[in-house]
Amino acid sequence: MVSDVKTVLVTGATGFVGHYVVDQLLTLDGVRVITTARTKPATPRLKTQFIPFDLRTDASDVDLFTYFNKPDLVIHLAWQGLPDYKSLAHINTYWLQHYRFLTNLLRNGLTNLTVTGTCLEYGLQSGCLSEALPTQPTTAYGLAKDTLRKALDLFLTGQNVSFRWLRLFYMHGKGQNPRSLLAQVEAAAQRNEMVFNMSKGEQLRDYLPIDTVANYIVQAALQTTVTGVINCCSGRPIAVRTLVEQFMEEHQYRLTLNLGYYPYPDYEPLAFWGNSQKLETILTA
Amino acid sequence: MVSDVKTVLVTGATGFVGHYVVDQLLTLDGVRVITTARTKPATPRLKTQFIPFDLRTDASDVDLFTYFNKPDLVIHLAWQGLPDYKSLAHINTYWLQHYRFLTNLLRNGLTNLTVTGTCLEYGLQSGCLSEALPTQPTTAYGLAKDTLRKALDLFLTGQNVSFRWLRLFYMHGKGQNPRSLLAQVEAAAQRNEMVFNMSKGEQLRDYLPIDTVANYIVQAALQTTVTGVINCCSGRPIAVRTLVEQFMEEHQYRLTLNLGYYPYPDYEPLAFWGNSQKLETILTA
Repeated sequence: MVSDVKTVLVTGATGFVGHYVVDQLLTLDGVRVITTARTKPATPRLKTQFIPFDLRTDASDVDLFTYFNKPDLVIHLAWQGLPDYKSLAHINTYWLQHYRFLTNLLRNGLTNLTVTGTCLEYGLQSGCLSEALPTQPTTAYGLAKDTLRKALDLFLTGQNVSFRWLRLFYMHGKGQNPRSLLAQVEAAAQRNEMVFNMSKGEQLRDYLPIDTVANYIVQAALQTTVTGVINCCSGRPIAVRTLVEQFMEEHQYRLTLNLGYYPYPDYEPLAFWGNSQKLETILTA
Repeated sequence: MVSDVKTVLVTGATGFVGHYVVDQLLTLDGVRVITTARTKPATPRLKTQFIPFDLRTDASDVDLFTYFNKPDLVIHLAWQGLPDYKSLAHINTYWLQHYRFLTNLLRNGLTNLTVTGTCLEYGLQSGCLSEALPTQPTTAYGLAKDTLRKALDLFLTGQNVSFRWLRLFYMHGKGQNPRSLLAQVEAAAQRNEMVFNMSKGEQLRDYLPIDTVANYIVQAALQTTVTGVINCCSGRPIAVRTLVEQFMEEHQYRLTLNLGYYPYPDYEPLAFWGNSQKLETILTA
């Protein structure tokens, strides 16, 4: 990977995705990693500089670009209030904090920015979803991310800033939210339960292991040829039931799946996955 | 027009649209009109009650529904900063003031709400635009209105509130912004100029006289059968050149049109107009 990025600021660095992204960045020669989050992690990470920041702070009179030591690149992963995708706080409070944070950095000199979005920006659209599709979010979280992206696009019009918006799909791996599906399978297995209650499991999704997602984020962030919205996805739909069965097989868990116990969520279509062509132009470059 | 609405609050009542909407409401028997705006109009309107309110006020601890005498219906026309459609203030400041204002009223008891949107929510989409089309705004103003509507939809999910969002297209009439096209034609004629500089004029738009728009707004607001997004439009495209020529004919202005003097604006497609079928179900009811 060739890049003239020497200093990267990673926001949300103590989160699930942030942890793996920092791991990936630390494998790169000549890249200095600055991390930020609301509170200092209990165990500080070696080889990174931590600078605390609370997004709720009114920093309108502060030059945040200088405060964070003028990074060559910002990878903005931070977001609050998840996984409650329906909380209105996403749209009436959180998104504007992110807009103000990022436009503060940009006004003060940042020229290279990667932000993570979400497949929930697509809303209830089915099938293989390409970046060019008009977004139609139906959740407060999806709308908040969608509004942030569109407002940043307007802010950046005519400015010489390299901007990538990585739309994350589903991911799994160690450290994920205990309310997520595979974490619950694992917990049930470790409690020696016999049965795992789940939905019918026929819904088709786009899943990636978290270290792969982190690798894609870093690869996309460290290049400037491909910009704009980029699906960060596998491009291959998998039935949720198959995903669970593969995971149990891999870990030799012997739970019986009680399919159809839970209804499907009302904020997701039955079958959707990402078109990964744009991402692949980065990965094969 | 049959309706059990007895008290209507009109916001933006001192504006161009507001003036005509209040006119229409005052023709109705048994309807009491409360108006609001930032500052009291120089000439108070007869037969209306004026209650001042500045949208920039932090009213989070105030019951605005009671403050405005618990209206049966709110027609929310207010918006600031026009016609500068590109100002980022629409999305980073104004929209949230409207969201907080309206959700304050709704939380405190309002059950019947009509808000005006804009055809700029559609963005650069061409042709006959139906309400069901996904919006793709490309201006800060369009994005702000689009975000307000989507956030209100989420806020109102599962609540028993009648909500109509009237997407306004183009309008003309006495009192309009002096920067608008026909106002400029009129001003040029009154200055006895010979030539009127304009664009090529081949762009197709959807225009209505302002009193017709006001009538449609009132008819739509005073019924609750048709809800959601409603195009407030003629449904008939007209070339801007033809519109200007008809206007000059009507007023016997003798300007020569210097077509092609100005370029087309970059934030509008060349040809778009509203699908008026949904509106017509109200007008013919």
